Amino acid sequence: MRPSKRAGDQLRPVSLERNFSRHAEGSCLVKFGDTHVLCTASLEERVPGWLRNSGKGWVTAEYGMLPRATGDRMRREAASGKQSGRTQEIQRLIGRSLRAVVDLPALGERQITVDCDVIQADGGTRTAAITGGFVALADCLAWMEARAMVKRKDVLTSHVAAISCGIYNGEPVLDLDYPEDSTAQTDANFVMTGAGGIIEIQGTAEGAPFSEDEFLKLLALARKGINELVAMQREALGAEL
Amino acid sequence: MRPSKRAGDQLRPVSLERNFSRHAEGSCLVKFGDTHVLCTASLEERVPGWLRNSGKGWVTAEYGMLPRATGDRMRREAASGKQSGRTQEIQRLIGRSLRAVVDLPALGERQITVDCDVIQADGGTRTAAITGGFVALADCLAWMEARAMVKRKDVLTSHVAAISCGIYNGEPVLDLDYPEDSTAQTDANFVMTGAGGIIEIQGTAEGAPFSEDEFLKLLALARKGINELVAMQREALGAEL
Amino acid sequence: MRPSKRAGDQLRPVSLERNFSRHAEGSCLVKFGDTHVLCTASLEERVPGWLRNSGKGWVTAEYGMLPRATGDRMRREAASGKQSGRTQEIQRLIGRSLRAVVDLPALGERQITVDCDVIQADGGTRTAAITGGFVALADCLAWMEARAMVKRKDVLTSHVAAISCGIYNGEPVLDLDYPEDSTAQTDANFVMTGAGGIIEIQGTAEGAPFSEDEFLKLLALARKGINELVAMQREALGAEL
Amino acid sequence: MRPSKRAGDQLRPVSLERNFSRHAEGSCLVKFGDTHVLCTASLEERVPGWLRNSGKGWVTAEYGMLPRATGDRMRREAASGKQSGRTQEIQRLIGRSLRAVVDLPALGERQITVDCDVIQADGGTRTAAITGGFVALADCLAWMEARAMVKRKDVLTSHVAAISCGIYNGEPVLDLDYPEDSTAQTDANFVMTGAGGIIEIQGTAEGAPFSEDEFLKLLALARKGINELVAMQREALGAEL
Amino acid sequence: MRPSKRAGDQLRPVSLERNFSRHAEGSCLVKFGDTHVLCTASLEERVPGWLRNSGKGWVTAEYGMLPRATGDRMRREAASGKQSGRTQEIQRLIGRSLRAVVDLPALGERQITVDCDVIQADGGTRTAAITGGFVALADCLAWMEARAMVKRKDVLTSHVAAISCGIYNGEPVLDLDYPEDSTAQTDANFVMTGAGGIIEIQGTAEGAPFSEDEFLKLLALARKGINELVAMQREALGAEL
Amino acid sequence: MRPSKRAGDQLRPVSLERNFSRHAEGSCLVKFGDTHVLCTASLEERVPGWLRNSGKGWVTAEYGMLPRATGDRMRREAASGKQSGRTQEIQRLIGRSLRAVVDLPALGERQITVDCDVIQADGGTRTAAITGGFVALADCLAWMEARAMVKRKDVLTSHVAAISCGIYNGEPVLDLDYPEDSTAQTDANFVMTGAGGIIEIQGTAEGAPFSEDEFLKLLALARKGINELVAMQREALGAEL
Repeated sequence: MRPSKRAGDQLRPVSLERNFSRHAEGSCLVKFGDTHVLCTASLEERVPGWLRNSGKGWVTAEYGMLPRATGDRMRREAASGKQSGRTQEIQRLIGRSLRAVVDLPALGERQITVDCDVIQADGGTRTAAITGGFVALADCLAWMEARAMVKRKDVLTSHVAAISCGIYNGEPVLDLDYPEDSTAQTDANFVMTGAGGIIEIQGTAEGAPFSEDEFLKLLALARKGINELVAMQREALGAEL
Repeated sequence: MRPSKRAGDQLRPVSLERNFSRHAEGSCLVKFGDTHVLCTASLEERVPGWLRNSGKGWVTAEYGMLPRATGDRMRREAASGKQSGRTQEIQRLIGRSLRAVVDLPALGERQITVDCDVIQADGGTRTAAITGGFVALADCLAWMEARAMVKRKDVLTSHVAAISCGIYNGEPVLDLDYPEDSTAQTDANFVMTGAGGIIEIQGTAEGAPFSEDEFLKLLALARKGINELVAMQREALGAEL
Repeated sequence: MRPSKRAGDQLRPVSLERNFSRHAEGSCLVKFGDTHVLCTASLEERVPGWLRNSGKGWVTAEYGMLPRATGDRMRREAASGKQSGRTQEIQRLIGRSLRAVVDLPALGERQITVDCDVIQADGGTRTAAITGGFVALADCLAWMEARAMVKRKDVLTSHVAAISCGIYNGEPVLDLDYPEDSTAQTDANFVMTGAGGIIEIQGTAEGAPFSEDEFLKLLALARKGINELVAMQREALGAEL
Repeated sequence: MRPSKRAGDQLRPVSLERNFSRHAEGSCLVKFGDTHVLCTASLEERVPGWLRNSGKGWVTAEYGMLPRATGDRMRREAASGKQSGRTQEIQRLIGRSLRAVVDLPALGERQITVDCDVIQADGGTRTAAITGGFVALADCLAWMEARAMVKRKDVLTSHVAAISCGIYNGEPVLDLDYPEDSTAQTDANFVMTGAGGIIEIQGTAEGAPFSEDEFLKLLALARKGINELVAMQREALGAEL
Repeated sequence: MRPSKRAGDQLRPVSLERNFSRHAEGSCLVKFGDTHVLCTASLEERVPGWLRNSGKGWVTAEYGMLPRATGDRMRREAASGKQSGRTQEIQRLIGRSLRAVVDLPALGERQITVDCDVIQADGGTRTAAITGGFVALADCLAWMEARAMVKRKDVLTSHVAAISCGIYNGEPVLDLDYPEDSTAQTDANFVMTGAGGIIEIQGTAEGAPFSEDEFLKLLALARKGINELVAMQREALGAEL
Repeated sequence: MRPSKRAGDQLRPVSLERNFSRHAEGSCLVKFGDTHVLCTASLEERVPGWLRNSGKGWVTAEYGMLPRATGDRMRREAASGKQSGRTQEIQRLIGRSLRAVVDLPALGERQITVDCDVIQADGGTRTAAITGGFVALADCLAWMEARAMVKRKDVLTSHVAAISCGIYNGEPVLDLDYPEDSTAQTDANFVMTGAGGIIEIQGTAEGAPFSEDEFLKLLALARKGINELVAMQREALGAEL
């Protein structure tokens, strides 16, 4: 029995609220249950130095947590003077995941920065960030399309969403919340495209090692969850994508 | 005529949403029009080193802005490795303002950190932060009172709220939004208690110097605005304070 | 009775020693009693990036304290790796105050940096720095005028000086020294031009809130003190300004 | 055809040179072909603050690269003032992997730091570091056993080794070198115990997404490679483990 | 002919002004011509962690330059966030030099920090700092003796002073000023005790290598100069030392 | 009697292993007994900003120590976020020493960075680094000569090598190892050219001051040792230099 009473293959209630921010070219407040992440996509007419005059654009991501997004207050990274290894690891993952569905030459020499800021955390912040970040990115491209800068369909090659799975009390379960995450024996994150292709797999044994068979069960759960998330992305973005 | 069509002495629509955060001991999402600041109050059973064994507690504040809270994306302070002078100035102001209505010995040797994170900015973020930060602080003290740790009435000596005023197109106006703030000749922030005592005055000539007479007009406007804000705080906090 | 036996409206002995530094284009060692600040003005033929090709110049300030300028040795900021919030707040104030009397287009695309380094501290370092920084700035402009780069009268629109006031033992007093500053109930800094216009007001209740009436008394004291300081600046700078 | 002419399931020549360092309690120079990593294990009689008085020890890892370990010189991290996200990600992975085979209570309240410094890089530095780091750790425990501090068999619950796999020119291959790594469509790192349990899986699509079937082929290759690496660890460590 | 018209073995005018600072336990404004360094000695009743409970004290030095001490303004180290290699090298030299004449056990478990801040620079700042730092240190010990904490004679084993020499236009000269220093072929700094013992020698070929014979000429010059400096220290400190 | 049983004027076994690194344009693993330093020379087609369009090149050095190169593990400088004063002092010395035998205009507008990383330390790391760094530099120039970029003989004006000497148990000895270095009364480092010219002398009294006579004995020892080191450099570099 999961602490949340969910079935093993059941997502938390998910919502994707577009246009949450007045200023950003694209934005989405994504909620996976009590995990709330504000994703904004910001367009800049410049690229990193190593892409200058390449004809290619760039998509990157940054990740942060408000200090009291969690049960105990964490030190503000701006005050401590550096981003933790965990923060850097997560923002690198978000960036790679979004770039996997973007045709960088079609974007042109521009950079889109997707900021994912965790307003409230209850496990799964990185998977929520990828899922909501995609919506913000798609809306940023729609904003550009409305200004005849790109065609969104040319830039985005697929949808992308992410979910965590784990082995909790010996059972494979989908979409870990914090009480599950902090005690799971095995914890894995999956990123997949709308077409079912795998973009990233990260599985970690927190306690005992896991077997190939257990891993395949997690992968199957993830596929089911990501299909549902992509369906919600399609619904949120309407006929537009 | 103000860009927002407001009368010269008219506040923007203000809202104070308590208990916005699931984890914090006290929290408030404060909106001054399109300026939205999430304030959380976090209790810790420790004080800074210089207060140890003093019998006194401490209230401090930290301030941050999401990178795309503004019209142009700003660099994330955690990534640049330090807080700007502006950020430090604002968080010092918020801390001083809140401490001005707190009886530190009555708090006991504990620290309350009020984090004020700007989700969306349209001018006046520091005054919204002080006004909403007070509500978060009051709720944190209510949380403590419910656990018989303190009596909220003993700790809080008054309400505190803040507002900006300025001279815009030659006229004194209350509660500057960003279009006004960026072109005002004079810009002043006022912090006052519920009893009308002045806690902090900061007035700056952005263009031509201002006169004592002009300054007194701004002070009168501020008094009116702060009275209204304190009334809203009272309404939000109910009979509790 | 003030610890220094001064009358309530009496400045400490003030001196302005021009050309203290052999290298700087303008310099002034300013003393407000035992508070000694060395101000140098350095000219550079470049402006910050955001002013390039604007035709406008820039005046900025930096502030520092020698580690043993104070009663207890403070940690050297260069060793701790960052400037404190207090340092940044003060140097931003000095820069704003000086720019308020400078016609930036008349300066041309050049930057003048006014460094204010506290050799010895006894309260009021920021007001001494503004008052002496103006003399260094004026001499830097005289240096430029001697080389036919600008006309000093075109660049400087007025004099500027600053003083602190406070409520000490219930009485409003002018130009707080450290023993007063550390125990004053209310502490305010005023920056005004030679023509009596107000550039900056910063008033803070250290203990109980203050009233409008008290504040007006401080403002009147400040006006008297700044008039005296500007007279000394005129005397120091001679017929030149 | 692989650039190195290796068969698809063939490791590079691997060597594990124990006792490379005169000072460290355990050390191993590990070579996977032209990738050379010096691993040292350092024992300290202290634990991180959050483990004090817990009766448990800690194993952690740090990772670095000499500036010219690579084809182009990289900036020295000590000079740039921070470790890159990549460095932090790798050292966190090494630490997790080694801790997965350590019984922390059996270690007692002590910390072992495994430093993995890349002397020369040709792809696969993190997998070499885990494989060699285990040997250094085992020797550190032998050093402790010789001093009757622990029994090595009690502390180490299994062997641990790691290898990369990828899809290169459409074919799954084992142990990518740099020319393969920089052009592979998919790149995955696997960490497993001597008993075949999975500790960590990290798979990333560099170009097109990959399928479950492709992933299973990589996993099978990895299992073969890790079995061979563990056999070499056993041979290097002799009857001792 | 030297730019300053001095004879080859002639010091610049030297002055040692004691008690320059109101707050420090000992202080000295030392001038070697246009090089002016303010040295303060600060006593603290604590020692670095590695000396705790050793019964020994510590003497350390810090060095800084005001940004416009030099012909061109240098970036403020507190603003750039770190001390340069040159700064660290110099402050380590000053500390070693002063400790060479201090009996650390006789000092007791206390730390004296000698801050050497360059107000104006014209070459030879480190040698002026050592020479003036000794006077500040001696006065700090006199302050302590007046409070019966130590006997100054027990703590100080000798005087210490320092001077630079160099080969300028082919001739060995004493006490380089900036115009000489910046073009000298060879530049050497010498630190000696009042009894003529050598504490530190640093000689550097700026252009062509130098010979042993040339070096011995510099050493002889240095001995003469340091004898004169020690005589001035004796005169400044009076019968007290 | 020296701990190592060496005669007073005897070097430790020295080896210079060229081409240790596969990637660098020049490299040398130098061993002075148990002190092992890997030196790599990296060529870049750019110069520091202040040399742009000067027609001159630059040679610089960086120095690092693996954390467990020493008896006790030291904190990794990349993790602590800055290079120690000692590290900066040493790398500045290495750079100056190598530049002393380089004709910078003959190098052309290019930079060679010599990285000296201490793999294992037993005293004398800076002298080993200079001695081995010269071999790496010479090989980098040979690499350039093979590509017709420069003539090595034009760029290198001499050999350069370095050695430490000290007074140990009252006797002058050559090439201190760590047990000697940590207890020597006087410690000096000498850098000389192949022609016997002196480039740098650094002598420090660790305990009692030293006399001119003692210093000359150290200088004589150093000359003997450096002659032997240069002979080994000649042998290692063959007829090529």
